[in-house]
Amino acid sequence: MPPPEPGTESCLFCTLARTAPRVHSAPGFVAIDDINPQAPVHVLVLPERHVATFRDVGAFTADESKRMLEFVADTAEHVGLTDYRVLVNVGPGGGQTIFHLHWHILGGLSSRADVPAGVEL
Amino acid sequence: MPPPEPGTESCLFCTLARTAPRVHSAPGFVAIDDINPQAPVHVLVLPERHVATFRDVGAFTADESKRMLEFVADTAEHVGLTDYRVLVNVGPGGGQTIFHLHWHILGGLSSRADVPAGVEL
Repeated sequence: MPPPEPGTESCLFCTLARTAPRVHSAPGFVAIDDINPQAPVHVLVLPERHVATFRDVGAFTADESKRMLEFVADTAEHVGLTDYRVLVNVGPGGGQTIFHLHWHILGGLSSRADVPAGVEL
Repeated sequence: MPPPEPGTESCLFCTLARTAPRVHSAPGFVAIDDINPQAPVHVLVLPERHVATFRDVGAFTADESKRMLEFVADTAEHVGLTDYRVLVNVGPGGGQTIFHLHWHILGGLSSRADVPAGVEL
């Protein structure tokens, strides 16, 4: 395991990507349960690599971009979801509280109207 | 302009991707205003190519995947957003009503708590 990149030692999600129990994983990406679930199924997909926000999504290579998107869809299927929502909060005003890009997968909602009013980490 | 692929002639978003006023565009992707906005800024990003749901996101090549993600981020910036939410509804139980993959960009919310309760279309 290489040491963390400079500046990312204090990033909670850099740490969790290395240490948290994994719901699913693929090279470069992990899925973990949200510790404050906003839906019956609420999983976070984290790239292992530190990219602060979705604004910087261009930092991922084409191959990483494809594998990240596929991993989000694969994770949803892996946890038994066919219908779900994928959400990325961008910046403090968008509800982002941890500045390491992550994808929320929300599932198990009983109807379209039964949507979480606020999804925060 | 090539003719629509078989089976997509009746897809609303295939049509809108060709005909609707564009907020922003890039090769293969367009952004349009949501006709039923759920936030002060509510833009939809559509791939021109017909892919029914996010479950099928693996249909995009690596290059398309990277350009799609970058186009979502670029569109948000283009419409003046720094903080926003990116949402994909997957399947009827996830709030998807038009079966052509699309990305919602929601911005201009006044606070983290001021989140749309239901985002459809």
